[in-house]
Amino acid sequence: MNLYQQKITQLRDLMKKNHIDVYLILSSDPHLNEYLPDFYQNKTFISGFKGSAGTLIFTHKKAFLWIDGRYWLQAEKELKGSSIELQKQDHANTFLNWLKENLKNNEILGTDFSLLSLNLFENLQTNYRARLKHIDLISPLWQDRPNLPKSKIYEHKIKYCGYSRQEKIKQIREKMQDLNAQSHLISSLDDIAWITNLRGNDIEYNPVFLSYLLISQKTILLFVDQNKIDSKLEKKLNQDGIYIKNYCEIYQEIQKLRDTNLLIEPIKTTALLIQYLHKSVKIIKEINPSTYLKSIKTQKEIKHIENAMIEDGIALCRFFTWLEENIKKNKRISELDIDLKITEFRSKSPYYISNSFATIAGFNANGACVHYKATKENFSYIKDNGLLLIDSGAQYENGTTDITRVVVIGKVSKEQIYDYTLVLKAHIAISNTIFPKDIPMPLLDAISRAPLWKNQLDYMHGTGHGVGYFLNVHEGPQTLSYFAPVLEKTKAKEGMLTSIEPGIYKKDKWGIRLENLVLNTKVKNPKNKDYGEFLYFKPLTLCPFELKCIDKTLLNKDEKSWLNAYHKKVYDKLSIRLKNEPKVLKWLKNKTKTID
Amino acid sequence: MNLYQQKITQLRDLMKKNHIDVYLILSSDPHLNEYLPDFYQNKTFISGFKGSAGTLIFTHKKAFLWIDGRYWLQAEKELKGSSIELQKQDHANTFLNWLKENLKNNEILGTDFSLLSLNLFENLQTNYRARLKHIDLISPLWQDRPNLPKSKIYEHKIKYCGYSRQEKIKQIREKMQDLNAQSHLISSLDDIAWITNLRGNDIEYNPVFLSYLLISQKTILLFVDQNKIDSKLEKKLNQDGIYIKNYCEIYQEIQKLRDTNLLIEPIKTTALLIQYLHKSVKIIKEINPSTYLKSIKTQKEIKHIENAMIEDGIALCRFFTWLEENIKKNKRISELDIDLKITEFRSKSPYYISNSFATIAGFNANGACVHYKATKENFSYIKDNGLLLIDSGAQYENGTTDITRVVVIGKVSKEQIYDYTLVLKAHIAISNTIFPKDIPMPLLDAISRAPLWKNQLDYMHGTGHGVGYFLNVHEGPQTLSYFAPVLEKTKAKEGMLTSIEPGIYKKDKWGIRLENLVLNTKVKNPKNKDYGEFLYFKPLTLCPFELKCIDKTLLNKDEKSWLNAYHKKVYDKLSIRLKNEPKVLKWLKNKTKTID
Repeated sequence: MNLYQQKITQLRDLMKKNHIDVYLILSSDPHLNEYLPDFYQNKTFISGFKGSAGTLIFTHKKAFLWIDGRYWLQAEKELKGSSIELQKQDHANTFLNWLKENLKNNEILGTDFSLLSLNLFENLQTNYRARLKHIDLISPLWQDRPNLPKSKIYEHKIKYCGYSRQEKIKQIREKMQDLNAQSHLISSLDDIAWITNLRGNDIEYNPVFLSYLLISQKTILLFVDQNKIDSKLEKKLNQDGIYIKNYCEIYQEIQKLRDTNLLIEPIKTTALLIQYLHKSVKIIKEINPSTYLKSIKTQKEIKHIENAMIEDGIALCRFFTWLEENIKKNKRISELDIDLKITEFRSKSPYYISNSFATIAGFNANGACVHYKATKENFSYIKDNGLLLIDSGAQYENGTTDITRVVVIGKVSKEQIYDYTLVLKAHIAISNTIFPKDIPMPLLDAISRAPLWKNQLDYMHGTGHGVGYFLNVHEGPQTLSYFAPVLEKTKAKEGMLTSIEPGIYKKDKWGIRLENLVLNTKVKNPKNKDYGEFLYFKPLTLCPFELKCIDKTLLNKDEKSWLNAYHKKVYDKLSIRLKNEPKVLKWLKNKTKTID
Repeated sequence: MNLYQQKITQLRDLMKKNHIDVYLILSSDPHLNEYLPDFYQNKTFISGFKGSAGTLIFTHKKAFLWIDGRYWLQAEKELKGSSIELQKQDHANTFLNWLKENLKNNEILGTDFSLLSLNLFENLQTNYRARLKHIDLISPLWQDRPNLPKSKIYEHKIKYCGYSRQEKIKQIREKMQDLNAQSHLISSLDDIAWITNLRGNDIEYNPVFLSYLLISQKTILLFVDQNKIDSKLEKKLNQDGIYIKNYCEIYQEIQKLRDTNLLIEPIKTTALLIQYLHKSVKIIKEINPSTYLKSIKTQKEIKHIENAMIEDGIALCRFFTWLEENIKKNKRISELDIDLKITEFRSKSPYYISNSFATIAGFNANGACVHYKATKENFSYIKDNGLLLIDSGAQYENGTTDITRVVVIGKVSKEQIYDYTLVLKAHIAISNTIFPKDIPMPLLDAISRAPLWKNQLDYMHGTGHGVGYFLNVHEGPQTLSYFAPVLEKTKAKEGMLTSIEPGIYKKDKWGIRLENLVLNTKVKNPKNKDYGEFLYFKPLTLCPFELKCIDKTLLNKDEKSWLNAYHKKVYDKLSIRLKNEPKVLKWLKNKTKTID
């Protein structure tokens, strides 16, 4: 019997013992993180499937795993012999639809509430048959479970911080007062890192640490593994009114709350925490004030981000020069080497901390998988002709980067040039847009897609996401995606940092995505003031596009002007740092030539 | 004492007698029509204000009228001496906000539930203090109230109808079955006219008649003034299973319903009707199936609409030729003459029934009022130099039209040319868009506005509304407006007919709006089929734009191509009908010249 079949048999024994009819395993942790610590890889433990997203459902007879397109091939291999059926997730085929159709009245649906958002909990409770029961059936089975991460917590140097932690807490308390909330519980790690100006290393790519923060108008409690904070730092935090409690004590502390209005954000708080609340506690459901505050970068932060972009741009120039040279020399380079090399160049910056996500380097057909990741078992060499898509980024002390470029290897075909130019047109269309302040950003997405729609093309991902400041590369609340709901919190504000990344993905052929980070910036000296304030997207990313892949005849005057101005800016900002590197400078000069 | 002050004193007496603290008068009728029969002009009766929209609130001491910007000047005059305070309605100042802030617990808010949508009723009941009470305090005061309209009902000739009424009813019953609704009450007059293939003349501009329709799986009852239907027509309706009841009997009939699921659309049904329901009746709230069905024009209807557009286009060519000639001759022409003359030319068509809304003819500054209507007391002459905006349309047996053009009178300034060209760019931007079928249309609006936003300009109305087929010129469910909520029902379907009408309004100077009706049309021979079906906006309106007002240097190649192709189509479709009118033909030829 396959290892996973054995585990599933044990799981079903526990289900029987506990009268559970259906058991649900989410890819989640108590902070509802995008990336999970090893300790919370329940899905992988029970199924063997190693992809980053997926949802498992077990009945006494059947087992299913729902995953999206990027993992189907991988899952087919990894699930072999496990008895788990692969469910190809799409708009219609979701685990929620399965529950809707298959759950029977009075059946018991078990799941671990410490991994379940309050939002999903309420949805399951209101709109589905069956009773929900909190139960963790994984811990009893998992003998050699990894430890929780233990890395040290450190301060984000105050010279890089937009506000001191006292200033941030003051702003949050003001918002709490507006909402008539005497208490505020925060479970989301990037919010806590931002508020406290602390950073950690518990989650790959995200400089955060496992913790909870409980803010009242008088005290602030930070729940965290106390070994992660040295006494000097603890003293500093105490001086700012922040006191340390052990990570697990959150459950005791939350039970003690009485007669208070507690502010929480339902998609960022687990159902288990809420179940512990005394009945005299009234819940106020709102976006975490810090989520909103941290999305609006301060002038000081913006200056630092601009410097981080120069660091990133220099590393990219060096990397692309190296790549061009070595391809010319017919050196054997794989997609894995791309990741190593680009990281090597970035890590030379004194500000570099880590990568901000797993590098995507996809050559030709591999580039057509939106979330492709080369592995030792499965990768391509960069050779002959084709397009190489590289989506990568870094955490610097002074900012987080995220950039996608596509470069030509060998000869380029007409169809590739056509597709590249279309994506560039989409990129320029939205980059070059001026828009009213406070417009919900999902409403702008069509502007980006219009040039592709004209060719009956589209891309099945958002055009852009918010980006943290030396924090998570994906952050809210804004989103530039027409799939996203048009909510108050998605409104465009000055100082928001967002990615712009339209694409074309031709199955088995190539993928093209062109991504810059852009800053919502006020129009200076507006021609007209009768219609309120207008913003534009100021590109902060500094890296040339691939001139070899552009069909100039498809660009209109405005598009050419935008491209030339962007390339001039890239050259001006980066060339001064490359004076002593003639080869790299030559590459940059060549790549940023004016087109007419 | 002013007449209206007297009426208000009487109203307050009735309020006291009936223990009403606050009385609300909506501009509304039992069918929640956009335009009201005289019988329902309660607002005008009590206040003297004659504008088409506005909401009155009376307390025992105060009286307020909320109206939007287009009526402020008029209201100031008309309210003089009435003791009613004018409230300039905007985003923040609304009667609902007033109620929120001023209503006290246990106060009684009276209003006539027969004029109150279920939607607003539920909102008032859930989110506001005070108790709601149904009471009509206007009828007792209104001695010389006008009669309800009595015009005859006639059949929409079957040769023009997309489906027979049996076919339409079959489709609705299928939808009812899907929704598990055994009964369906329809109060909206355009829905009833569409389903029954009947037309009337009870509401100005809308060829509808006062009625209710109650559909079950077995019977269909049409509630209507029986004098409006002759016996021959009644027999035909009976043959199709439709039986006539008197208009007022709806209230008795609805009380008889038992143990049934009743489908209604809450924004189109009054609270009073719902209050009459027996408790065994379960309400299913959904969009009226007919609203959705009638928005999708059939191939047969589209052919007829295209013919109606030729009728309209010919009338417009004749009118504009007349205008140009008479302006040249320095004839004295007023905005009122424009309305008369354009109607005269349209009415020569054998298909013409009436205008589809009140003609807007605004010269220079008057054009800057979005809903300007010249009156005998207040109008301008068309003389010297300037821009004349004309927004007009007609009901033809074979289609409804709605078009806005702006023509140059005398000399034109650089700034006028610039503004006109920008509006044309906005018009072309959205007209020339290809978009995925099923995208909610509010998401497309940004494409139209982008060229204006670039100049920090915008317009405070939607870019487009749905248009009926020999029915209301404004109909849902689709809407091309970023102010509108993104709802399932706003999704773009093939066959939907929508207006495109961006604008620039320069206060005290001029207004520019350019409007065509366009048809959601499937892309033929798509380049690519991997991303589903794509639609484009096919312009059906046939009338040249004003070449004299276009700065060619501001148009790119694509925009010029679109304009030239459009003008070629206009010329080709209209010129064959103008063979015997050399003057008009010459005008058309001149106005549709290719630009380079």
